[in-house]
Amino acid sequence: MTIDRAFHGKRVLITGGLGFIGSTLASRLVHLGADVILVDSLIPEYGGNLFNIDGVENKIRVNISDVRDEHSMKYLVRGQDFLFNLAGQTSHLDSMQDPYTDLEINCRAQLSILEACRKHNPGIKIVFASTRQIYGKPEYLPVDEKHLLRPVDVNGINKMAGEWYHILYNNVHNIGSCSLRLTNTYGPRMRVKDARQTFLGIWIRLLVEGKAFEVWDGEQLRDFTYVDDAVEALLLAAAKEEANGQVYNLGGDCTISLKALASLLVEVNGGGRFTLRSFPEDRKRIDIGDYFADDQRIRKTLDWNPRVPLREGLAKTLAYYRAHLKRYL
Amino acid sequence: MTIDRAFHGKRVLITGGLGFIGSTLASRLVHLGADVILVDSLIPEYGGNLFNIDGVENKIRVNISDVRDEHSMKYLVRGQDFLFNLAGQTSHLDSMQDPYTDLEINCRAQLSILEACRKHNPGIKIVFASTRQIYGKPEYLPVDEKHLLRPVDVNGINKMAGEWYHILYNNVHNIGSCSLRLTNTYGPRMRVKDARQTFLGIWIRLLVEGKAFEVWDGEQLRDFTYVDDAVEALLLAAAKEEANGQVYNLGGDCTISLKALASLLVEVNGGGRFTLRSFPEDRKRIDIGDYFADDQRIRKTLDWNPRVPLREGLAKTLAYYRAHLKRYL
Repeated sequence: MTIDRAFHGKRVLITGGLGFIGSTLASRLVHLGADVILVDSLIPEYGGNLFNIDGVENKIRVNISDVRDEHSMKYLVRGQDFLFNLAGQTSHLDSMQDPYTDLEINCRAQLSILEACRKHNPGIKIVFASTRQIYGKPEYLPVDEKHLLRPVDVNGINKMAGEWYHILYNNVHNIGSCSLRLTNTYGPRMRVKDARQTFLGIWIRLLVEGKAFEVWDGEQLRDFTYVDDAVEALLLAAAKEEANGQVYNLGGDCTISLKALASLLVEVNGGGRFTLRSFPEDRKRIDIGDYFADDQRIRKTLDWNPRVPLREGLAKTLAYYRAHLKRYL
Repeated sequence: MTIDRAFHGKRVLITGGLGFIGSTLASRLVHLGADVILVDSLIPEYGGNLFNIDGVENKIRVNISDVRDEHSMKYLVRGQDFLFNLAGQTSHLDSMQDPYTDLEINCRAQLSILEACRKHNPGIKIVFASTRQIYGKPEYLPVDEKHLLRPVDVNGINKMAGEWYHILYNNVHNIGSCSLRLTNTYGPRMRVKDARQTFLGIWIRLLVEGKAFEVWDGEQLRDFTYVDDAVEALLLAAAKEEANGQVYNLGGDCTISLKALASLLVEVNGGGRFTLRSFPEDRKRIDIGDYFADDQRIRKTLDWNPRVPLREGLAKTLAYYRAHLKRYL
């Protein structure tokens, strides 16, 4: 089954659908001929932004509600062929300061979405957006899916539980479901107001505003997935039956230190500046050090290949925010 | 620091303290000279039973409250030297039928206990009772602590999260905390009314009542820890600083198939009968097959040695329920 045909005429629900990845996925699905509904709470601290669907807003249905609202979810999952379950609390620091909200969104709401599917639409296929944060500080590099999960913050623990509910409902209740462990995803439509979604967001905002951005430590190695490549992975995982019950790492085209990334960003931007500083204490305690993924499993079994090189992805992202920054502040 | 001196004059709080392991631990701590408070909800479906502290009830303070009650926990953790955090929902099947209750007890309440300690008593030492259930169906045997966690029921997922909150609060907030992954613990005071705590409970009840008990499948290999040995492990983990931030498997003196265990039980009892049958469908879907632990880590680093052989432990257990069965129905 190729992606081109898998979604034509299909009903697709995306939670967190006005967010960075959800909205990019939604646009792609519209082009593939799908009938798309987005669920988003538009909580200001999270990634949802109505401007994210600018240009396709008439081809998509938007339902403003919170995944913690069991009643709306019960209704919305009915009749859907696919659910891309992307809604989540993503801030590591917020999860340490308010662990209960993170629990409600990343655990309890996930359970209630899955219960709604079990009771009202067991034939649905679900793809869950998990995170490399659940691995914690790597024991070895690159990190493959056999690496132990040893999360270093409340967000990582709750996302780990949320992922496993999905695998469990696949294995026990036969609801086709799988999980992608995303690394740093970047690109147009990401949250740039602050660092709640990704540090790269605030870097890009400050750069576009002509201000210096801060790089903490700078020696950490990381990998980055351009949003279109992440969307491709989500679509492949949804379309392919062999993904059911599986977890997959996503990686990117290269591994780079944050200091080198900052320099590359300034270079691609044609100017700008950053300052290197040591970690703030509260952030240091939950930092994971170097991380990059071994993503051979998804490359081999689902035939995923990230296509956008880092330099090109950064250029596209900068161009987007040069044009649209105001819509993200 | 030997156990004999570590708890003398110390203030100790035990959640789930009227339960099987909690009450056995409480009696031991009283003999070691500790000042013990038990917290228990006495929810009929769980393991709490006032008869469990018969004989020491005047030397222990009992506080009936639920670990989900944040306010009582906030008060109770203050001034304590040790917290044995044993309260939990333990039924695998119940967790599949009512995942939210399991989540509230095994995740949310754990977070709120840890938050209470962080805010009101960061110097406390915590030992958390985890479970081998979090490993799911073993990939290899015996299962050591490097085995991936792949829980097969909601209870396993939530206990996994609960355990990791404890490790996280140790690593990030410097609250001394560790986790023991218990296997089948058995002995006097266990719940025998039904199979919610352990299948061995209902076997023993039926045997003592002169009725046939059911063995499902029977070929599964398992290991068993006599309750006094589990209590010893809890005390060692509490007393030793090197346990902080660690997880430990508990095992027992031997590995045995359930069929052989049933025969041994009948033999030790001097009579009785059981029937072999296939798994009920709902139970089969969450069964983990063979399991036995590699418990070398706790043997080597904390000097734990299980002392009670299975045959002797079963004899003691049967003797207890022949005398006291009525108090457990």
